[in-house]
Amino acid sequence: MKTSLNCIPCFIHQTLNALEMLGADMCVRQRVLREVLRRSSEMDLINSPPAMGKVIHDLIQRECQVPDPYREVKERFNRLALALYSDLAKKVKNSPHPLDMAIRLAIAGNIIDFGIHTRLQMSQVHQSIRDALEAPLEPTAFRLFSQAVEEADRILYLGDNAGEIVFDRILIEILPREKITFVVKGGPIINDALKEDAEFAGLADLVPIIDNGANAPGTILELCSAEFVRKFQEADLVIAKGQGNFETLNDAPKKIFFLLKAKCPVVAEHIGCALNSMLLLPHLSW
Amino acid sequence: MKTSLNCIPCFIHQTLNALEMLGADMCVRQRVLREVLRRSSEMDLINSPPAMGKVIHDLIQRECQVPDPYREVKERFNRLALALYSDLAKKVKNSPHPLDMAIRLAIAGNIIDFGIHTRLQMSQVHQSIRDALEAPLEPTAFRLFSQAVEEADRILYLGDNAGEIVFDRILIEILPREKITFVVKGGPIINDALKEDAEFAGLADLVPIIDNGANAPGTILELCSAEFVRKFQEADLVIAKGQGNFETLNDAPKKIFFLLKAKCPVVAEHIGCALNSMLLLPHLSW
Repeated sequence: MKTSLNCIPCFIHQTLNALEMLGADMCVRQRVLREVLRRSSEMDLINSPPAMGKVIHDLIQRECQVPDPYREVKERFNRLALALYSDLAKKVKNSPHPLDMAIRLAIAGNIIDFGIHTRLQMSQVHQSIRDALEAPLEPTAFRLFSQAVEEADRILYLGDNAGEIVFDRILIEILPREKITFVVKGGPIINDALKEDAEFAGLADLVPIIDNGANAPGTILELCSAEFVRKFQEADLVIAKGQGNFETLNDAPKKIFFLLKAKCPVVAEHIGCALNSMLLLPHLSW
Repeated sequence: MKTSLNCIPCFIHQTLNALEMLGADMCVRQRVLREVLRRSSEMDLINSPPAMGKVIHDLIQRECQVPDPYREVKERFNRLALALYSDLAKKVKNSPHPLDMAIRLAIAGNIIDFGIHTRLQMSQVHQSIRDALEAPLEPTAFRLFSQAVEEADRILYLGDNAGEIVFDRILIEILPREKITFVVKGGPIINDALKEDAEFAGLADLVPIIDNGANAPGTILELCSAEFVRKFQEADLVIAKGQGNFETLNDAPKKIFFLLKAKCPVVAEHIGCALNSMLLLPHLSW
């Protein structure tokens, strides 16, 4: 997905919000913001929005000299989500349609996105769960998903955020886990999950965890490690969580199911859905 | 007032909104936005926000080849406001405190600001009138204002927007109009009033109308004509309408009363009031 001009004010807001969260001093804020403005003025809009997300957060990490600014946020939401784990697992167990329920919960967890929600409260997570249970997901998409999982030998599950990965664990527990490899980011970027988060969430006991070798808020294949790209090419099914993965892979020649909440107007318009829609989106170009 | 970093996303939004209103093609939008980003990346924050407002709208006028993009908007709100004139005049006439009422209405008219409200509806104007009648304006400010008007020989009334100037007329009609000169902008800038608007609103029949020689959305003295600056220096009281005049003159060594609605968070925070407060603000440094 290309970058829209309407993404640009959002880049600027994201920059200011992150700097405020970090309590950066005014000189640093000014230096970072000016650089983001300069880079935005020159950016190639053919690149996806997460490409600029990486630029922004790399700059912030460097200028604020904090290698992982969202470490605390990630730990907090890992703990909070893990505290929900047994309730969520019960919802799946007691559901007449466990896969349907687990997919909905995995989508609900995508609310935990500090690129968008910089002041997320747990009440919003609970609301997201309620919304997901009511969301009008298409039966056809469920059937295609079930069939694709059944037919696949090698499934790559691209995780998104810390905390959210507890919701992914709920889904992975009822999928044929011997087929699945779970992918985290290669370095700190916003609140995206890293290996330590996957371990904390209990995912590492279920499936192999690999990282993609890059610290972009999405999956920009050109920036990923050769090893990851090989795995991506070999996989016959990709389950991709979140907006960032959608924005970076929606044109990839691959069988992908995107599970996401369309949290920004540009993505919602691109997909053709209402803002904040919960989506199980088969990638139609495979 | 200096520019805050939090003004920058607003500059970008304003740019995109104006380009959308004009139906500019994508090439033009991209060119203008890139230039606004570049200029923002280099801007001296010691300048007031309207300095960048001027840069943005000059660029839009040039790149879209429309010398007065808001002409239609201005004409529409002149007509709509003029249709309210007799009702507003009646409100003042029937009020036990006509000056209080006229000041409140003049502040109410400041809602007609297309730098902030790019999709303003008349229902918002009516709401603004109702809000102004209830606004907790300070009795001390009223007393100071009355006294200053009485003591002054030469009053400069700095207008703000088209449509809004009908509300200014209501106030000017009960002030000692022989003391007053009404000031409009020297060239098209957003929906700020020009001479033709002052004439349409019937102000030209009441008081002399001059322009300030500049097309900034405020009063940036360095950009104004020598003639206007002389009048400004000679005046012993300035009545300044709107945010733009506040942002550009709040440090001026002059007896000024600002009449405005604090429509943006940066201005509200600077003043120390709630967003959307209606204000009669004596300039405390005179």
